[in-house]
Amino acid sequence: MVFSHQSLTNFSVDVFRSMGCSEEHAQRAAAVLIDADLKGIDSHGIARLPGYIRLWQKKRLNPTPRIEVVHETPSTAVIDGDGGLGLVVAPEAMKYAMDKAASAGTGWVSVRNSNHYGIAGHHALLAVARDMIGISMTNASPLVAPTFSAERLLGTNPIAVAIPAGQQPPFVADFATTTVANGKLEISKRKNQPIPHGWAQDKQGKPSTDATCVEQGGALLPLGGTRELGSHKGYCLGSIVDIFSAVFSGANYGPWVPPFVSYLEPIAPVGKGIGHFFGAMRIDAFRPAEEFKNDMDRWITRFRDSKPAGEEQVLIPGDPERLTYQSRIKAGIPVLPAVVSNLREIAEQFDLDMPETTEETTR
Amino acid sequence: MVFSHQSLTNFSVDVFRSMGCSEEHAQRAAAVLIDADLKGIDSHGIARLPGYIRLWQKKRLNPTPRIEVVHETPSTAVIDGDGGLGLVVAPEAMKYAMDKAASAGTGWVSVRNSNHYGIAGHHALLAVARDMIGISMTNASPLVAPTFSAERLLGTNPIAVAIPAGQQPPFVADFATTTVANGKLEISKRKNQPIPHGWAQDKQGKPSTDATCVEQGGALLPLGGTRELGSHKGYCLGSIVDIFSAVFSGANYGPWVPPFVSYLEPIAPVGKGIGHFFGAMRIDAFRPAEEFKNDMDRWITRFRDSKPAGEEQVLIPGDPERLTYQSRIKAGIPVLPAVVSNLREIAEQFDLDMPETTEETTR
Repeated sequence: MVFSHQSLTNFSVDVFRSMGCSEEHAQRAAAVLIDADLKGIDSHGIARLPGYIRLWQKKRLNPTPRIEVVHETPSTAVIDGDGGLGLVVAPEAMKYAMDKAASAGTGWVSVRNSNHYGIAGHHALLAVARDMIGISMTNASPLVAPTFSAERLLGTNPIAVAIPAGQQPPFVADFATTTVANGKLEISKRKNQPIPHGWAQDKQGKPSTDATCVEQGGALLPLGGTRELGSHKGYCLGSIVDIFSAVFSGANYGPWVPPFVSYLEPIAPVGKGIGHFFGAMRIDAFRPAEEFKNDMDRWITRFRDSKPAGEEQVLIPGDPERLTYQSRIKAGIPVLPAVVSNLREIAEQFDLDMPETTEETTR
Repeated sequence: MVFSHQSLTNFSVDVFRSMGCSEEHAQRAAAVLIDADLKGIDSHGIARLPGYIRLWQKKRLNPTPRIEVVHETPSTAVIDGDGGLGLVVAPEAMKYAMDKAASAGTGWVSVRNSNHYGIAGHHALLAVARDMIGISMTNASPLVAPTFSAERLLGTNPIAVAIPAGQQPPFVADFATTTVANGKLEISKRKNQPIPHGWAQDKQGKPSTDATCVEQGGALLPLGGTRELGSHKGYCLGSIVDIFSAVFSGANYGPWVPPFVSYLEPIAPVGKGIGHFFGAMRIDAFRPAEEFKNDMDRWITRFRDSKPAGEEQVLIPGDPERLTYQSRIKAGIPVLPAVVSNLREIAEQFDLDMPETTEETTR
């Protein structure tokens, strides 16, 4: 079924409001959530709504957080999210980073006591409208084994970097620091297909091509996949995200990061909630913005027009998400039957109308 | 043959002085260069000395640079290296970033008009002594093809991040944003062995296992190696390094970065020299240093003691280099015969004594 982004946004706003969020917070959270669906990152959009609700039911999510700056310098701050929705805490922390950048050239904010924050790229991209480079990263519950380890010690710990251009659309990198996100294993599992070597390992730490190996206690692998192809570099990246997000802020790190899924109980914490890290760098803190943007246009054009190795055109980071956005903002967002039935349960639970489907579905 | 680090350092100082460098610059450059040998990153140490000399002979290297800050804000600066040795420019730029961090919490310096700067990790690690996190990256001459491209558009563009701990040694990540550095292909070539799938592609952009494919016009591949294992993420990382180092500073970027090897002539430039990017973040700009270090110790211990998947113990980034350093600082630095004969030529060229070998070699 296909829903308009407005109908899914309104539905999400109603749900967050029903959980006790303020109107402003509910709007902000819904905007981040549905942005994922619009950009084609379906794993982080409306499909996650039941997860947030279950966390709230378990009292692991505070709908009325008092988001507070607990420490700061001219270019840095630590923010305590008071157990709130990451979808609400993250844009506020990013705004704080941008305000720091406005005065000090750059701003860097580490966040503790937060929760799942949606797609990393959404927050990074906020900076582009202010002629800044935006950086966003977060740690997450442990699903990833460091190189040579049989244990899950890191999350998929994504990094996003958004860079403004002039005539060209912005450069937006947004990626998990693993070879693939967990969702890819789900897809192979549904299709009853083996997964490629380098995606995951089994519970004993042996390379596996079984799409169910992670849910059976195995682990995702850091970007690189194998030692021979540089998995120690992906392990470095995931670790850096963990340390900037959580050791800088006093959140839980490594294997102590509390699980997003509510049926797993968190272990004894070493910090507060999960951690994020945001950065904003004013372009003109380095170079006149026009000069920078002209060079970015030349960079982007040269790369996009480079000779392809095969059938596929060379892409600029951000291209696929932007194309999906342009299509879905008009044609609507396709939602899988399993997710639609989740939405029905939620509508019943909170006594809400189901979001309306688009004409396209009806026809 | 095995040389003491002092003898190789003194020899390098003499060479840089003979090129016209000041005593201070010669000392600084030699310290960076030989640090690579001490840490086992032999490709970036004394073996590179002939390369620097050839650049100087081609007048592409200024031995008496006037290193200048051309723009700054409380937390940022752009530095022009005046065509100097990267080995000299980089530590100065890093110091500038740390001084900014001392007052503003963080400091970020983008550098143009520089040259090959040795190992990225050396500069990042300078910050640790000042209770700061250090970040160092540089662009480099194009050898790497973006995902889906048949063209070389990026360098191996390394990233280094050094993070202080308490009782534990610091966390030091230092890696090229490709699956492997070019040196690994050299080794396979010497052994007459094929290279693994995912390291490189041929001139047409087809995957190749021929160790000579890059020198025949092919390309190294971004970290991930193949699209299926996430090479688009390595492409993102290499691009971010390029943009921070060169588009921020006004250096050459992408395919325009001038080659280190002197037998290739640079093409018409779009900026000045090559670019670097440095960052320093004061720990206590986020959190009391003691708390941070205690958590880093716990992080490091937990990861190092995790259950191994096989024979190998789990490593912390920086472990291998530190162990090699501890051994070589005492036992000396082994140098390959081909490099020794380069040193003989250099000694003759500049009328210098050969560095003395250690007793170990003599015995």
